[in-house]
Amino acid sequence: MNVGVIGGSGYVGGELVRLLLFHPDVTLNYVGSRQYAGEFVYRIHPNLRGLTKLTFEKVDFKIITDKTDLVFTAVPHGSAMDIVPDLLSSGLKVIDLSADYRLKNPDDYIVWYGFEHKNPNLLEKSVYGLPELFRDEIRKSNFITNPGCTATATSLALAPIIKAFDVDASKIVVDVKIGSSGSGFNANLMSIHSERTHVVRAYKPIGHRHTAEVEQIIKTYSTKNAKISMSVHAVDMVRGILSTNHIFLNSDNITQADVWKIYRNVYGNEPFIRLIADKKGLYRLPDPKIVTGTNYCDIGFAYDKRTNRLVVLAAIDNLMKGAAGQAIQNMNIMLGVSETAGLLFSGFHPI
Amino acid sequence: MNVGVIGGSGYVGGELVRLLLFHPDVTLNYVGSRQYAGEFVYRIHPNLRGLTKLTFEKVDFKIITDKTDLVFTAVPHGSAMDIVPDLLSSGLKVIDLSADYRLKNPDDYIVWYGFEHKNPNLLEKSVYGLPELFRDEIRKSNFITNPGCTATATSLALAPIIKAFDVDASKIVVDVKIGSSGSGFNANLMSIHSERTHVVRAYKPIGHRHTAEVEQIIKTYSTKNAKISMSVHAVDMVRGILSTNHIFLNSDNITQADVWKIYRNVYGNEPFIRLIADKKGLYRLPDPKIVTGTNYCDIGFAYDKRTNRLVVLAAIDNLMKGAAGQAIQNMNIMLGVSETAGLLFSGFHPI
Amino acid sequence: MNVGVIGGSGYVGGELVRLLLFHPDVTLNYVGSRQYAGEFVYRIHPNLRGLTKLTFEKVDFKIITDKTDLVFTAVPHGSAMDIVPDLLSSGLKVIDLSADYRLKNPDDYIVWYGFEHKNPNLLEKSVYGLPELFRDEIRKSNFITNPGCTATATSLALAPIIKAFDVDASKIVVDVKIGSSGSGFNANLMSIHSERTHVVRAYKPIGHRHTAEVEQIIKTYSTKNAKISMSVHAVDMVRGILSTNHIFLNSDNITQADVWKIYRNVYGNEPFIRLIADKKGLYRLPDPKIVTGTNYCDIGFAYDKRTNRLVVLAAIDNLMKGAAGQAIQNMNIMLGVSETAGLLFSGFHPI
Amino acid sequence: MNVGVIGGSGYVGGELVRLLLFHPDVTLNYVGSRQYAGEFVYRIHPNLRGLTKLTFEKVDFKIITDKTDLVFTAVPHGSAMDIVPDLLSSGLKVIDLSADYRLKNPDDYIVWYGFEHKNPNLLEKSVYGLPELFRDEIRKSNFITNPGCTATATSLALAPIIKAFDVDASKIVVDVKIGSSGSGFNANLMSIHSERTHVVRAYKPIGHRHTAEVEQIIKTYSTKNAKISMSVHAVDMVRGILSTNHIFLNSDNITQADVWKIYRNVYGNEPFIRLIADKKGLYRLPDPKIVTGTNYCDIGFAYDKRTNRLVVLAAIDNLMKGAAGQAIQNMNIMLGVSETAGLLFSGFHPI
Repeated sequence: MNVGVIGGSGYVGGELVRLLLFHPDVTLNYVGSRQYAGEFVYRIHPNLRGLTKLTFEKVDFKIITDKTDLVFTAVPHGSAMDIVPDLLSSGLKVIDLSADYRLKNPDDYIVWYGFEHKNPNLLEKSVYGLPELFRDEIRKSNFITNPGCTATATSLALAPIIKAFDVDASKIVVDVKIGSSGSGFNANLMSIHSERTHVVRAYKPIGHRHTAEVEQIIKTYSTKNAKISMSVHAVDMVRGILSTNHIFLNSDNITQADVWKIYRNVYGNEPFIRLIADKKGLYRLPDPKIVTGTNYCDIGFAYDKRTNRLVVLAAIDNLMKGAAGQAIQNMNIMLGVSETAGLLFSGFHPI
Repeated sequence: MNVGVIGGSGYVGGELVRLLLFHPDVTLNYVGSRQYAGEFVYRIHPNLRGLTKLTFEKVDFKIITDKTDLVFTAVPHGSAMDIVPDLLSSGLKVIDLSADYRLKNPDDYIVWYGFEHKNPNLLEKSVYGLPELFRDEIRKSNFITNPGCTATATSLALAPIIKAFDVDASKIVVDVKIGSSGSGFNANLMSIHSERTHVVRAYKPIGHRHTAEVEQIIKTYSTKNAKISMSVHAVDMVRGILSTNHIFLNSDNITQADVWKIYRNVYGNEPFIRLIADKKGLYRLPDPKIVTGTNYCDIGFAYDKRTNRLVVLAAIDNLMKGAAGQAIQNMNIMLGVSETAGLLFSGFHPI
Repeated sequence: MNVGVIGGSGYVGGELVRLLLFHPDVTLNYVGSRQYAGEFVYRIHPNLRGLTKLTFEKVDFKIITDKTDLVFTAVPHGSAMDIVPDLLSSGLKVIDLSADYRLKNPDDYIVWYGFEHKNPNLLEKSVYGLPELFRDEIRKSNFITNPGCTATATSLALAPIIKAFDVDASKIVVDVKIGSSGSGFNANLMSIHSERTHVVRAYKPIGHRHTAEVEQIIKTYSTKNAKISMSVHAVDMVRGILSTNHIFLNSDNITQADVWKIYRNVYGNEPFIRLIADKKGLYRLPDPKIVTGTNYCDIGFAYDKRTNRLVVLAAIDNLMKGAAGQAIQNMNIMLGVSETAGLLFSGFHPI
Repeated sequence: MNVGVIGGSGYVGGELVRLLLFHPDVTLNYVGSRQYAGEFVYRIHPNLRGLTKLTFEKVDFKIITDKTDLVFTAVPHGSAMDIVPDLLSSGLKVIDLSADYRLKNPDDYIVWYGFEHKNPNLLEKSVYGLPELFRDEIRKSNFITNPGCTATATSLALAPIIKAFDVDASKIVVDVKIGSSGSGFNANLMSIHSERTHVVRAYKPIGHRHTAEVEQIIKTYSTKNAKISMSVHAVDMVRGILSTNHIFLNSDNITQADVWKIYRNVYGNEPFIRLIADKKGLYRLPDPKIVTGTNYCDIGFAYDKRTNRLVVLAAIDNLMKGAAGQAIQNMNIMLGVSETAGLLFSGFHPI
């Protein structure tokens, strides 16, 4: 199977390239970049120096269809719309890492993204690539829309609880902390080290776009409506998201064991979810530091009987389970190879 | 006026020493430390090298009463109880930076701190040293209990809103991010750089002790009961707290201007509160990075009409407005000198 | 005395504004910026919010001469040349923080900066503003060229030793570590947090421009020729420089006491130099962390008898003693006010 | 082949466990720790949660010899001496990661480590495990002394140059920058985040123990005597070493091409050495950030004709090529399996 990456110079594109170069079941033979066409890939992604002689190629439809059977589109929001329809109609399998096909309702793009969708008919055909919740649909699909990073962590934390428990679905607070790689490989004053180091910057206290995505997933998975109140903060780390989910329960006769049971039922056999609420050790709850570089989503919780609040914590690497890693996981499922192929990295201690 | 610091080797003690050395209206002539008695102060606080020849002295009652008129107790929670009564009865003014006299109800110490209070009668006599809310009482008092760092930021954010608006007082979520200096000048494995760098560690997802303090302040100030759902996360910065307060309003005909009006009424003339919700610039909302080293509490907000949620952000330096700076502010008020004396540092850009 | 700053939106300009706003002996009534004219100063330097209503003004010769008696030029290298001559001929005192008037030999600008100097005759008239070595000339001057940050730390470390000892002057290795604020308030890919965090980037292993400056100072001060082999590394801090100077001595009958004596003779009464080589405490040698925000240059050393090598360490804040702080110190000397006016900040512990 | 790790709770031990768990040719069935015997390995090394059920076992000679054929000793300097002789005499292959068998001359232990060696006769039998310089000896040995981290980077940079060129061997300056993981998994005040963040701490300006090691390697490899003047600085990163080597050449008719040729001759086929001196891209010279988590030693240089100085930069991950990774590389050579087995991790961008 020959695969390609469109948009290979960004951080997500670079991770896709890295993962595909070492993947046992596919061959990477196309990496596209408008800006860096002709340049060695290792010049932009210096970790790959000595590991590949690949150069970035032009984003040319003929080249792509000639060289690949499956392609990842890791381009900015809004530009995937211009590429994906042709890729699909030429028979390629497509995994789109932009937000352009995540929402089912075209109107949501006007509300949350500020543009009118150009291919609304394709929205229904895309399958939302969150394997732990929608694996069967992914298996049969040739067009995956890969989830947003914040949406991944948050949905995996919330969906099982909202489905199983009676919660106050209008007052779910999601307080997110995210690293600088989430801003991408772009130069701007807000991102330079001297301004960005040691901040706790509430850059999206309200109105984060992934809100719509999370609400859609919850509805699809649980058949319940929930209103998500999300606030996103930039903190001093390069990779990582911690999603802290505050859920008020309507019933007060719930125990920690009940919560465990739900998560174990849903995620007990998942290769990339670890349930963590330890009584010993330095890392008793999920922490993005520990999942750096891995495809894990670590989930843990604490239950506050006094206010009947369940606090669920989900930690991921935004570039891995939050983007490139999950895209490879989706590809593995689509291709029928081992779901963990190419994704078995354990993370480091310390890092 | 001669002043002293008991517990001068910790981070809060060190900040007190620094601020008092440069204070125009008082003379620092006692710095006590059990552990470092006899050692130069600058050996522990290297920023003071060349600025003072003071040495740490024994924590000896006679020395303290001989040399000082007012004393700051910056000792661990639980040990202030053993010292404060004698200091007070010898006629000294006392500003206690521990938690030992913050809560009015002795039972709360059993619930939240796990010990029985030894001087419950003194709890009523202490005045809670949050000048913006209780300045008049501070002015008349000779015994101040200095607020907790998280409680300061959170209470200043919440109290005016809860007093003025009809909110869902049982579902107030306070998601706090705090720097490493909050763990004090103590060696343990969780705090070493290799383990602590780039974490987002939910070290108190529920049950943080300052919860009781915030609820007490809100009740005192607003005469309303509120239940605070606090979760505290350690993030990668040395100094600083960002308190993100998620408040659901019961009425939906509220505007941003209404919120501004409330804060302006309460804090419009406060020297150490800045109201921030800018439309331009890199720092449009409070960020602990910007208040590093200052006595400011920066407050800002965003209002999410969709979910009727008000997100109030409050940023402080935990060692300054969250501890030593606020203690000096209280001292200034008690002594009738300028409230800002010794506290006019502006902070740095960048830092 | 009315003073102004040209180039107030950069990091050095911002520090000048901050220091001048709180300076007891001068009035800041002009802050110029081509890019941000009309904007509030606090929008760019958020630490100054609530502390000044000043706006950036156009860089207009008439405005500047009308409003100021002394002006700081904090503009990019190469553009000070276009401004300074007119400012001087209109009778203003000028402290230039660019490199445009630091080197005495016009040819050096071609070699080290790659441009031909437009006002070579002015080079002789500028006085090099390193007070510890050239205070008398500064006192009489109305045109100061403010030293480079790396040159300041390195020259203060080296000059007394080279003057006093017989050293191998052709093999002096200066290994410098510098923070991200040294790259200025500019957006580029190398500076973004995700690329810049945790680097040790040898961005100038050879050919650093301050080499020429250090060699010139040493020659002027010691009347000896020395060849400086400088390598500069970017490390993970915002402010700060550590200059590690490796000096091989030709004689081997030197003791630590001899070295102390030399530094004490030269710097014993200097208000902004601290000599540090402690046997106890966590900070036994100079560390830029400790001088953050201060105007200190901390100097310490170790002597390796085995290889007859003297290692001298000098730590400064690159924006303070390395730029704005030293410029204020120079202004104080020129104006005959207290040399430490406006510069008595002690630094923080921890930071 | 069954292998074991003695001292598995430290950072180096943890990396050995991680690498061995995923190694294709060996089975890890013993991890010893005096302190944590009985505890799950993942409690100390949280990255391994879900990946192994191994527990730490007692450091018991019988258990070790029963369960393993080859053992890594990752114990503190001084304690390997007590263990290694018995392990060897029971027929186990041993790779010792302490410093106890690195130096050939017993007297050097008194000078540099301050203790008298207990098994001086074993010093001659150990083979120094730096594969790029001593691969043939490693292949035949059953007792490897694994190099120090700083010694690895520095020796790989210096040895070929000193062998090939006429240099001033008495004035070689090695200025090292190292991350916090180099201090190990130990709690002390110097290491806590608030004290350790953003430092440039010259913790060993002279007298670093690896000096003796480097001098010995150079002599063995080049048959020349060289005096190394090493200074080691702690900087703000978790993993990584940059060794900046300043070498003065006695001849001045040397070109960059000459230097390239030497390194290519010696390292051209080495799987874990990358020669880097790029003209484009953000990372043109070695940077420890880029080798984080990998077994690479990146080497690059700049040549300063003006002072006839060659600056060679070598970057490694101190826990990988500087310890555990190199130990696995040595094991692979000893066992005759692929030298890169288990070590093909590429590193991340960004990290």
